[in-house]
Order: sequence, then structure tokens, then C-alpha cells
Amino acid sequence: MATARIFVTLKKGILDPQGKAVEHALQGLGIDAVKGVRVGKLISLTFEDVSETEARRLSDEACEKLLANPVIEDYEVELLQAVE
Amino acid sequence: MATARIFVTLKKGILDPQGKAVEHALQGLGIDAVKGVRVGKLISLTFEDVSETEARRLSDEACEKLLANPVIEDYEVELLQAVE
Repeated sequence: MATARIFVTLKKGILDPQGKAVEHALQGLGIDAVKGVRVGKLISLTFEDVSETEARRLSDEACEKLLANPVIEDYEVELLQAVE
Repeated sequence: MATARIFVTLKKGILDPQGKAVEHALQGLGIDAVKGVRVGKLISLTFEDVSETEARRLSDEACEKLLANPVIEDYEVELLQAVE
């Protein structure tokens, strides 16, 4: 079993209204040392009966086909554990 | 400047309909080695003029007051860099 943790984030320069809203809310709560907030997605995929290499390949394929929009988003794959 | 990466995930046992939808979509794309998907949030906070310790404390405070719902969600804080 292997678990991949996938981070999908907006590319630099793409406006992030959700991040701006969080930043204003935090400042309203008195946490005003915050100078920037970006909000993204975290997706955990659990694979069964695949090698670590295969899990990484499938994760990349999942990002390219479904999880990330390559026009405005970047993604990063982190394999957490692989007990085979 | 310090950057905190915050992962907000649903607690174990809490139903994740978005994760289920992604799982079905991946299987429809032929990625059927996937046996479980959980979707969470990734929030990057950038702090200015605070120490690493203070950035961690403020991140915890932000999670408890705004970013995570402690009834159904867990959070994890990772400090990425601290150039002071």
C-alpha cells in the first residue's frame, strides 16, 4: 500500500480571492503579522498493490487528467509511505 | 519572513463525499489501483517580522479560530522557511 499526498496550488501571479478573504479575516482576529495567504487543495490517494514508482506515475497521471488545471495550477506529489 | 503550510483534513471516520467523487472519477479514467481518496485544504500563511516560534503559535491560533473546524477536522502545521 502506498499513500500519495498531492498539493494543488494556484500558480504564482494568479489571483486568489479565497486567500485574500482568509487574510482579511485573520487580520480581523488580530493576527496581523500575516502578510499573505494562498489556499490550495490537498488530496490523499491510497494505492493498493502497486510499487512506489507506479504510485508516483499514477499520481502524476491523476493530476494531469483530473486533479489540477495546468493553466492556472501547479501540483506537487509526495509519497508518504510504501509498505509493499 | 516565515511561511507556514497548514494542512486541514477531515478526521478519520468523517464521510468525505468530495473524496468519493474523485475516487469514482479516477476509476472512470482507468486509474483503478486507487483505493481511497480524501480531500482537504492546504493553506499557506506568510508572516513578516515574527520569529519561527511566534509563526508557529500564530498558525495554531489561526487554525483554532478560523481555518479548521475542530469537530470534524484535524490540522497540521509545517514551517517551511524562516529567514529572519
